Parts: sequence; C-alpha cells; structure tokens
Amino acid sequence: YCYMPEILCISLNTHLYNVPFFTVPLARAHGKSFAHRSDLRQAKRIVVKLGSAVVTRGDECGLALGRLASIVEQVAMLQNQGREMMIVTSGAVAFGKQRLRHEILLSQSVRQALHSGQNQLKDMSLPVLEARACAAAGQSGLMALYEAMFTQYSTCTAQILVTNLDFHNDQKRRNLKSTLHELLRMNIVPIINTNDAVVPPPEPNSDLQGVNVISIKDNDSLAARLAVEMRADLLIALSDVEGLYDSPPGSDDAKLLDTFYPGDQHSITYGTKSRVGIGGMEAKVKAALWALQGGTSVVIANGTHPKVTGHVITDIVEGKKVGTFFSEVKPAGPTVEQQTEMARSAGRTLASLEPEQRSDIICALADLLTERKDQILSANKKDMEHAVSTGRLSPAMLKRLSLSSSKLNSLSIGLRQIAVSSQDSVGRVLRRTRVANNLELEQITVPIGVLLVIFESRPDCLPQVSALAIASGNALLLKGGKEAANTNRILHELAQEALSIHGVKDAIQLVSTREEEEDLCRLEKMIDLIIPRGSSQLVRDIQRAAKGIPVLGHSEGICHVYVDHEASVDKAIKIIRDSKCDYPAACNAMETLLVHRELLRTPLFDQIIDMLRTEHVKIHAGPKFASYLTFSPSEVKSLRTEYGDLECCIEVVDSMQEAVDHIHKYGSSHTDVIVTENEDTAEQFLQQLDSACVFWNASSRFADGYRFGLGAEVGISTARIHARGPVGLEGLLTTKWVLRGEGHTAADFSEQGSMTYLHENLPVARVLPGRRTTS
Amino acid sequence: YCYMPEILCISLNTHLYNVPFFTVPLARAHGKSFAHRSDLRQAKRIVVKLGSAVVTRGDECGLALGRLASIVEQVAMLQNQGREMMIVTSGAVAFGKQRLRHEILLSQSVRQALHSGQNQLKDMSLPVLEARACAAAGQSGLMALYEAMFTQYSTCTAQILVTNLDFHNDQKRRNLKSTLHELLRMNIVPIINTNDAVVPPPEPNSDLQGVNVISIKDNDSLAARLAVEMRADLLIALSDVEGLYDSPPGSDDAKLLDTFYPGDQHSITYGTKSRVGIGGMEAKVKAALWALQGGTSVVIANGTHPKVTGHVITDIVEGKKVGTFFSEVKPAGPTVEQQTEMARSAGRTLASLEPEQRSDIICALADLLTERKDQILSANKKDMEHAVSTGRLSPAMLKRLSLSSSKLNSLSIGLRQIAVSSQDSVGRVLRRTRVANNLELEQITVPIGVLLVIFESRPDCLPQVSALAIASGNALLLKGGKEAANTNRILHELAQEALSIHGVKDAIQLVSTREEEEDLCRLEKMIDLIIPRGSSQLVRDIQRAAKGIPVLGHSEGICHVYVDHEASVDKAIKIIRDSKCDYPAACNAMETLLVHRELLRTPLFDQIIDMLRTEHVKIHAGPKFASYLTFSPSEVKSLRTEYGDLECCIEVVDSMQEAVDHIHKYGSSHTDVIVTENEDTAEQFLQQLDSACVFWNASSRFADGYRFGLGAEVGISTARIHARGPVGLEGLLTTKWVLRGEGHTAADFSEQGSMTYLHENLPVARVLPGRRTTS
Repeated sequence: YCYMPEILCISLNTHLYNVPFFTVPLARAHGKSFAHRSDLRQAKRIVVKLGSAVVTRGDECGLALGRLASIVEQVAMLQNQGREMMIVTSGAVAFGKQRLRHEILLSQSVRQALHSGQNQLKDMSLPVLEARACAAAGQSGLMALYEAMFTQYSTCTAQILVTNLDFHNDQKRRNLKSTLHELLRMNIVPIINTNDAVVPPPEPNSDLQGVNVISIKDNDSLAARLAVEMRADLLIALSDVEGLYDSPPGSDDAKLLDTFYPGDQHSITYGTKSRVGIGGMEAKVKAALWALQGGTSVVIANGTHPKVTGHVITDIVEGKKVGTFFSEVKPAGPTVEQQTEMARSAGRTLASLEPEQRSDIICALADLLTERKDQILSANKKDMEHAVSTGRLSPAMLKRLSLSSSKLNSLSIGLRQIAVSSQDSVGRVLRRTRVANNLELEQITVPIGVLLVIFESRPDCLPQVSALAIASGNALLLKGGKEAANTNRILHELAQEALSIHGVKDAIQLVSTREEEEDLCRLEKMIDLIIPRGSSQLVRDIQRAAKGIPVLGHSEGICHVYVDHEASVDKAIKIIRDSKCDYPAACNAMETLLVHRELLRTPLFDQIIDMLRTEHVKIHAGPKFASYLTFSPSEVKSLRTEYGDLECCIEVVDSMQEAVDHIHKYGSSHTDVIVTENEDTAEQFLQQLDSACVFWNASSRFADGYRFGLGAEVGISTARIHARGPVGLEGLLTTKWVLRGEGHTAADFSEQGSMTYLHENLPVARVLPGRRTTS
Repeated sequence: YCYMPEILCISLNTHLYNVPFFTVPLARAHGKSFAHRSDLRQAKRIVVKLGSAVVTRGDECGLALGRLASIVEQVAMLQNQGREMMIVTSGAVAFGKQRLRHEILLSQSVRQALHSGQNQLKDMSLPVLEARACAAAGQSGLMALYEAMFTQYSTCTAQILVTNLDFHNDQKRRNLKSTLHELLRMNIVPIINTNDAVVPPPEPNSDLQGVNVISIKDNDSLAARLAVEMRADLLIALSDVEGLYDSPPGSDDAKLLDTFYPGDQHSITYGTKSRVGIGGMEAKVKAALWALQGGTSVVIANGTHPKVTGHVITDIVEGKKVGTFFSEVKPAGPTVEQQTEMARSAGRTLASLEPEQRSDIICALADLLTERKDQILSANKKDMEHAVSTGRLSPAMLKRLSLSSSKLNSLSIGLRQIAVSSQDSVGRVLRRTRVANNLELEQITVPIGVLLVIFESRPDCLPQVSALAIASGNALLLKGGKEAANTNRILHELAQEALSIHGVKDAIQLVSTREEEEDLCRLEKMIDLIIPRGSSQLVRDIQRAAKGIPVLGHSEGICHVYVDHEASVDKAIKIIRDSKCDYPAACNAMETLLVHRELLRTPLFDQIIDMLRTEHVKIHAGPKFASYLTFSPSEVKSLRTEYGDLECCIEVVDSMQEAVDHIHKYGSSHTDVIVTENEDTAEQFLQQLDSACVFWNASSRFADGYRFGLGAEVGISTARIHARGPVGLEGLLTTKWVLRGEGHTAADFSEQGSMTYLHENLPVARVLPGRRTTS
C-alpha cells in the first residue's frame, strides 16, 4: 500500500521500438475532450510534455535551468490545486553531454586550461559524444535536479522509464497503468521519459548539422499515448514553435491557428521542424489528433518564449489563448479573427458609401429601436431576471442594465442626431494645396479602420457606438458583458439589419462573451483602436493588456475645483455641490477642493462645509489644511486619490498659481475648475492649466460629449495625442493625403529640374473631394 | 597547486558576531570606484549579493527556483566572459525550513494526508522551526542546488562559510583572502554565506509577524566587506526593493534615485524594510557607502521583479539604468530627469508667450545660424575629423554629418518659414459652441508637452526640430549621436541663446550622449511623445523600448507603384524611375512594382525593364510574375520586403482591384501610387486604398513634409491615430476644451432644472481666444 516506486524501469525490448505509440490500439475508449478553451479550467489530470528545445540550452549542452524551474513551479502549483500532473520530459541527453564533455576534458589533461582565467571549454574540439551514452549519463542528474526542484514545493516525484514495447504487452501496460494510478493517488508527480539507453543506434540526422542525437521522435506520441491511457483531460505539448500555422511559419501569409479541428487537417501546410530534437510539426499534430480522438484535449504551445515561459502552463489551464488548441467541436459561428476580417472588409465598403447612405443606415437603426421595442424589452427582461436571480449585480448596475420604452426613444433621437453629423465626417477635405502646376494635394478625413469597443453592463451603449462607427465609416467589434447577453444580441441583430440596406451587414460584429478581453487586446494588426467603456478598472486592465494597439480613454479622473478668494458665494456652493454630488461615481466628479487661504474662517467657507455635511460628503484634509485646524478631519493618505463616492479632499492654497501647481502635480489632466469673479485670474488659470478640460465658473460635470454638443460620446481621453477630452465622431477619424499629378517626379524639382514648388493654399470649403480645381 | 577547497569552513567564534563587518578597518585602501554607469562594463571582479527575498519563495519555505536559476545563468555568463564572479547568498534557512517541515510532518504520522489527493501540507499547523537548525539543515541542499545549476554551465563552485570573527583576526583574514584569490584564479565561483548555525540565538523580530528567523542582518555588510577586501570592482546587491527612494516608497512624491552620491545622504528619508530577511534600506545604504569609500562601485536593485529578473545582473553590468547606482563623482550638469523637469517648466512659459514672441525666438535662432557660422563649422570640422580618423562612418553618413555655409543658409531660410507658420499654431480656436446662455465652450490648440527627439548623425536636424518645438510651444529633449557631439553642442547653445530672449532658455535640453536611448524611453509620465529620426532600425528599437509613451514615426516603408493597362508610357517610366532611383534608401522609395497583366509583352513593359536595367536596379519576381516567364529573375522570399536599395520586386495583377488588395495585404500603409490615364480607375484607387498617402500619376517620393508644403517635417507617420503621413507643426499640437460659465451646473439642465442646451455653433475665425462673444 505504501510502496513507493521511486525508480521504476519497465522491461525493455528494442526491436519494436520504432512502431509509433499511437498505432497501438486504445485499451479502452473513454470520455470526451473539452469543447472550448475556457473549459480547460476543469482539467483534473494533465500531462505536460517538455520537448528538448524547452528543457535544454541553446547549445544543447546542459539544461535551460530558468525555464525548467519555472515549469516545475507551475506544475507544482497546479498539483497543489488538487490536479494530477504528469510530466513527459526530454533533456537527459543534453545533461549527459554536458557531464561527459567535462569528464573527457579532464581526462585529456587540460586542467591547465582552467587556470587561464578564461573558460575555454567552448573552444575545445571534442569527440562526437554517443547520444545513448549521454542519455544514460544524464538521466540520473536530470532526475536529481527535478527532485531537488520539486522538493522546494513539497512535491514528491517518481521516475518512469518506458519503451514502446511496454505498451504492446497487456500485462506490462496494466502494470504501468496501475503504477501510475498509485503514484497519482499518493499525490506524486510521475516524470516519464523514454529509456533511451536501450534503443537501437540512431540514424544520422542531417537537419541537426551532423550532431549525433538519439531518435526520441516519439516523445510526442509517448505523451499522447500516456495521456489517453491514463484518461488525462489535457495534454500540454511544449516545444519551441508557437503552435500550428496554416502554412509554413515565416511565409507571408502564415497565421497561427488558435483552434484546430480534425476536419481542417487538409487545409494546412506543415511548418519547419523544431530546432532541437526530432519530431516535426506533422508528428506533433498526428499525436495530438490521436489523443483528441481518445478524449484528451491538447494544446501545442511554445515553452521557450522568455516573456511567457513563467506562466505558459497556467495560462493554458486558465483557458487563455496560448498556442493551438485542438478541439473536436467546431463552433457554429466564425472565430473572432474571422469576424475581424469580415468586419474590416465590410467596413471598407461602408467607408466608400456616400454620406447619405451611411446616414440612411443610422436612421434605419433608429427606426428599428422603436419599431422592435417589444422584442428588445423582452430580451432585456430576460437579462434582468437572470441578473436578479443570481444576485451578482449591485442595484446601480441593475439600473444600468435595464432598458425602458423611454430610454429606447431617447436613444433613437440621439441616433438621428448622429445621422445628421455623419453627413460631414468621412471624406471631408481639411487642406488643399497646389504643390506645383497640375500637382494638387488634398488631406481628407478617413475612418481609422477596425474599432474594438469593450463595454460593461449598459446595453444602450451598443446602438450608440454602432451609430458612431457607421457615421465615421469604421468597422466595429463589440464585446459586451455576459449579464446583457440577450439584450446585446437583439440590438446587434438590429444593427446588422440596418447595415444590410446597403450591403454592409458584416461591418459590425458582436464578439462572443466567451472571448477573454485580454486575448482580444492582443489582436495586433487586426484592430486599430480599442475603446473601453466602463469602470476605470476596466480601462486600466485594457490599457495593460493592449500591446501595440492604441487605447482611447482615461483610467483616472482626479478633478479639482479651485475656489478663489474673489469667488461668488452662490456660484461656489452651486458648483461644488454639482461637481461632487450630482453623480459622485463619474470620472468628471470633483475629488479635491482647493480653497484660497484667505477664505478660511469666512462665512463662505463655513457654508461650503455645511453644504458638504448636508450632502453627507465625507471630508478628508490635505496636509496644509490639516495644519490650519485644531481638530481636523482625517488626513489624506495621498493627494492623488480618486474617491468615486461622496468623499472628497480639501486642501488650502495661497494663490491661484499654487492651485495650478497643485493640480499639475496631483491631478490627472481630466477636468479642473476655477470659481472666481476676477476675469484676469480666471483667464490665467484657463491658460496655464494643462488639463483636457479647464472650466471657469461651471461644474466639472459638463465634461461630457453630449453636454459639449458633440452628439454621442465615445469616451473621454486624457491622452496627449489624438483626441483629447470628450471624444465624439472626430476621434474616430484619421486622415489620408491624396496627390494628383501628371507624371510629376521629385527630380523635376531638383536644381537641374524644370519645376518649382508653389505650395499655394486652395480653398477647401464645400468642394467635393476628388475633382481637380485647375488643370 | 591543484588543491580545490570545495567546502571550506573558516573557524568560528560567536561572541564577536554582532560587530558589523564594516566597522572593522580596511586592511588596505585600494582603487577608485567607477564614475558612470556606462563604466560598469569594465568591471572585472563582481560580487553579487542575493537577499533572502530574492532567493526564497513568498511563503519563505523553499527557494524561488526560477529566480535562482536565472541568476545562476547570468553569473555563469559573466564568468564565461572572463569576469571573476562571487556570490553572497541567503536561502539556507528557507531551504532547511521546507526540508524540516516535511520531516516533522512525516514523523507525526501524517502519511495518510498524502493520500487524500490534496496537498494539505500548507494547512497543517506546524511547530515553529528554530532558524539555526533550519540553516544547518538547508545549507547542504542549497549548495548542492547551486552546484547542480552551475554545472549546467561548466562552471565550478566552492562554498565559503564565514562569521564576523574571521575578519577580526589578521591571520584568518589572510587565509580567507588567499583562499578566495586561489578560487578566482582557478575560474571557480565562490559562494559565500554566513555560518548561521553558530551565531547566538536570534531576537524575535516583530516586523516578520513573529516568525522566528535568524538575524542575518549583516549579509549586506558581509558583501560590502568582502567586496572591498577582495578589491572587487562592483557589488550588486539584489533584494525586493527597486533601489533607493528620496522619500518612503508609496508616498505621493517618492522618486527612485537613479544615482546616489555620498553627499546627498541627508536629503533622503528611508523607505520600508525589505519584506523578507533583516537589513532595511538604511543598513543597505550604509554598507553600500562603506564599499564605495573602499573603492567598489555599488548598485542596489530589485531581483524579484518577474519581468527583469532574467537580465537584471547583466543589465547592470551593461550600464543600464536599473536600481540605484552609488557614485562618488557627482556630474557637473543636471541629470536627465532634472533636465526634463526644467524643460517642462520652461516649456509651460514658452506656451504662454504670445505667438509673436515664439516667432521672434525662431528668427533669432535663424540669425544665429548665419552669424555664428564660423563657430558652427569649426565644431563640425572637429566632428568630421574625428569621424574620418576613426573610420566608423560610411561615406553616406559622413555626408550627412557634414555642414557647410550653404546648408546653414538654407536651414536659416527654413527656420524663417517655420517662424511664419508658428503665428497661427498654439491657441488657435478650432471650435466654439454656445452650450447655453452665458455658457461658452472653446476647443483650442495647445502643445503636447515634452517631446523627446532622438536623431542620428544629421546635426541640421537640431535647429529644425528646435524651431518646430518652439513654434508649437513644446518643451524638447534632444538626444543626438556621439559622432556629432561638438556640432550639436554649439547648435544647442545657439537655440538656448535664442530662447533666452524671452526667458525660456531651459525649454530645450540636450541630453548627454552617455544616456542610453532605452533608458530615456522609460521616462514615462515625464515625456509625452517620442520622435525618432533616423533609420527604420532606430525607429523599431525605440518603438520596442518605449513603454507607455507614444512614438511618432514609422518603421517600414513598403511603397508600391501600380501601372494600370491604361497608363501613359512616358509617365510610367518617369514615375517608376523617380520612385525607385531618386533616393533608394528613403522610406518613400518604391519597393514593389505592380503591373497590369495586359501590359506583359508590350513595348511599355519592355521599356520599364530596360530602364530598370539601365539604372542597375536588381529585379526580383513575385510568384505570379515568375509563373508568366520562362526564365524569371530570382523569386522573392517575401512580398513584404523593404529593399532600401537599387532593388525591387515586380508582380503582376489582373486589375486595379487586385492591386488594391495586394497593397492592403503586403503594404505598410505608407505611400502608394497608381499610374493611369483613366480618371475613374484613378479615383477608385485613391478612394479604396487605405494608406497614409495615395498618389495618382506622381512619384512616391513626394511623400515628404517639405514637398507637401508643411514646412519642416517632424517625420512620417503610418499610425492610424494622431498625425498620419508627413507630419509638420500640427502633429506637435493637441487640444484643450475651455468652458466659461456663470455658475452653471449639470443639475440646471436636468428634468427639474431651469436650463436647456443650445449647442449653437459660433464662428471661430480670427477671434482671439479667451474673450466671450456674448454676455
């Protein structure tokens, strides 16, 4: 019962070795593989296969310790979560090679080389080491290292050496299985390797520059075989390739497949072989498909990428898009990559429509919102009921989720406003220059391309953003929250119905709620701009996840109201109340109130404090304010705090200039307000302050696209390039330069050339683009 | 001679243990520490000190294997470079704790716990382990692990255990030193630790939540002592803090010090203690200063940061800005961080000047360029002579480095053009809206903030970029190449002289050539926009290095010329020749020529080929073109190639539409040209193609700010947000929203409120900003 087979060498017979493992019939068909990556979280029994490229160093002498250690860390973590982990490992040859090389050097009496202060081991010419000897010499060290490493995580390991023959004999197979089951039951991680020392001499392999290595071709199939035999839920095969490409990686069109279905096999061309070890992609795929058929899910991924090695295994088990996932179940709809392609293509047609046609589409959508009211509200009711029954949403969130007849009506009105403004957005001529005779330049507005909008529970966001995208000629990917799934689905259908009028149905795509936001943020070169609409936490997460794709938005709104000593009492009270209390969770709500020192102990100041108390605003004192008081409210931890609630910080400043300096230092460049009756002071504040919105005698709450008169708002940006402040249609446009000539060349304008630059500005107003004004 | 002291325990005496190592007088004063980080590359003998937080896991039971492995990898790499590496390590206690806990559990007959399928070790209550016993139990395992790891890199290690007393006795100290010298001579890495087993019982330490740990307070000072004793050039002390802050980390103003000078000690407030282990920041700094005084350079850095752990040691040795560098030599000028602060502050004043004042400054600079011609040219001559004598620059680079009287004259003329355009840049009103009665909104142009321009050898770039920055009211950091150091210095002096006219001398700063570009790209929150001007390799490097700061530019220019079947022969030949041959290295040169299929085997086609042959352009064939030919030129590897030389790819397309699709697929959205006489075809091409510049019957070489009439050019952007195509002044501006009210609040506009939105567009032309038009 307590017998621990620390080293278990199953008997061997070499002549059958070259039969691939996966041709041996399955002992018994078992469960089903997972349909989606997100299901992988449920995987209990997991086989991790480590290819030689993962385990060994670049020069194939010695192990890649950093990688090995981080893999051990992840495996131990998953084991400690209650999963049953097994490892199929390479690396004995490399370990042995390193060891034997050292031995040979020493026996060649080169000890003196060690004393030169330079490591000359690398430069020495060495006899070719026989790989089987290396494997034998390295096996013990490799296992010792695994054991030492796993010991750091209180995890016990066991060594299993197998050959193909062990799977051919029923008795042996039963023995192997029962041993492995016993190990798993005892919470031990079995480490499995082929018994390389007893295989026939390897054939020389020209791919590896004549280096004599052991044919461990079948570590892939060994892992597959073991996974199925042990009814593992998941097989993770790590090597130095990213996964499966549809054509050889490196070729112009090669695309990494996120998910691969058995039926797709004819559609791919295999890529290059792994640098180290044997077993090209084709062999890996064969083994993977075999395991899949046997009911084990498979992910093939790169275990050598420095940036992800530390979490590649745990990421896969968390369902993230790493490498290629092998799935038997082909989902009904297109993948998100296909959706993006469809959106871009239809978006290009959308951009080439006449402005009136885009306007038509938006009006049609506005109509549908009221015509199909019942359908929308019944879908919304479903979402509401589900949300109430699960009790996961706060009352505020529930309110944002719910739609009503009147909400749909005002949405519809808003859309019609966007339709009007859309007439003058795409293709507008911003600049027109006569560069030379018959050489005319135009700068015109064009759509940005493909937008990804990620929004939380509010479903009314969907038609709004759709209308903005249509108006600006952009393709759009929408990712809504799970809680609004039904509402979003019907709203998206209506948007597509409206788009169909002019044959551009696919320009707006709704991404499945299954997709992880983080994965979407990695679709570089497919998406041109990401717009997160929701909490500042959402924005921060997206900003962090988005690599190489710009994100429009702001993660912080630390807005200030500065009350000057020449402020009007009424205005100050009104503006402070509105800025703080109108909607404290908004990003444009006041967080810090700056008060001119002369106002301390004046009636105005007392009135401000009374008002804040009446409104139940919790007051924190800035360090300077606290120093003026005998009994002060709690002092702030940081002057850079966004409370987002009925709380604020009060700080004292000596002058308008000090207020400006304070805001530059602690603000987030969102919206800042001065309350004063002195116009000069106000204008200086407005001029000097470097925020996206600067207000005089007006509440910070006006920082909003609708209130600014921009129509619907895409978001508020605190970035310093592209759009800044509340962003409407214009933030969704970029420009292109159109030059029309008659065979003009740069050489014509050189010193020897016949032409000179005119650079004459031409009027741009109301001229249709695309027609030359002179000839 | 060949005696290898694998384990060397120096004798011990406990009663003197608590004397800190660094109070023991130096045996002998030696060399000088390095003045600059970049000198660290010369460090031959290096001590790496690994704090407990680095070596042990978060729960302090067991080692952080991934970190340890990557540290071993770096140390072995440096050792193999010929350096002499020594390690002072913690970790024995953690290793022993893990081991003893396991033993105790087993002896408590909890074997059955192992069979539950769950790892319950963590949940078990355990007796507090005596730290000295842990240390003794862990020491052997720790050393075995180090040895196993270093073995993978053919590196031999030796163990040294010391106590304070070993430094007090001259004879012992001599023994220790001679042992260490012998080890270094034999290319062995000594691994040094305090002999914890023999120290007096530790005092309980409340900072560590009552966990009973050994007082290893003095591993910092041990490392310092050893470094000085062994005349090490560099001591790298790794723990879990980023380095030294000027005030406690986490407070609003805390700033990580890049370099710390002994004289600055009074100006800092010490931060929190390291989470694991003993020895707060103050102790580390004391030890570091002591080592510095002894002639050893010191860097304190974080060895636990997942993103950099794999290269923290090698980065430090390469002179990168990691952690805090302790230096005795305070440089004369300000640090780059101080320069950025100065620039931002002066830049704000620059932005608040009247447009005429900014224009004055630019004109003054233009004057200075001609007035001080002799001075500039003599500095340039120095650079040229140096470049010629070292022979590092190619003839093309030399040409770009050289200035002449006539170059200065045209520079001066260009600056005057910028001065004119500067009149209408900052503070321009783009939009004006009457939001409600007495509530008026303006959108006005404002500078972006602080620009960092990195440019390669061309020194004429400096006055140009300076003028653009002044015109747009931006602060500017300039980083030029080493080869133009003298020229850049004088040009920068002249720029500051011009700025002084209006008291904003500091708005433009020249960064020392010592600074690494990569480090500058990390000054997030200090720099708002980076503009690399130079090779596409430079741009790519900067884009990769810039985290969180936008980069304006493009890394690829794969421009196409499409010759339609209705093209004019003359125009086609002229445009192709100019696009490819005028300046093949430019980003706007043609890389791929697309030819309509019907042109094959026509005289036009033959003429094109003849012309390309005459111009010595090497032709590569696209796959489709190759298939049409019996004997084709070499087929392209990728249709996405930027040759940047007298080479191009020719491909055949069936239609204008196919040309557009080809360019969308393989192009870089830079500049693409159609040659045709058919206006409809041309207009469709111009409309459909989604590149920054689309040309009809004009050479791709026109894609250039000067040729477009934008005045001087900042660069060409292929990004889809902010500026696109050739970027002039406008790309250096952003906007802010100014709202002027009379106590307006958002609540006034609610259903219960008294006001309604007007959103009336007001005329913007020629109204000075800042004054209300109505009352």
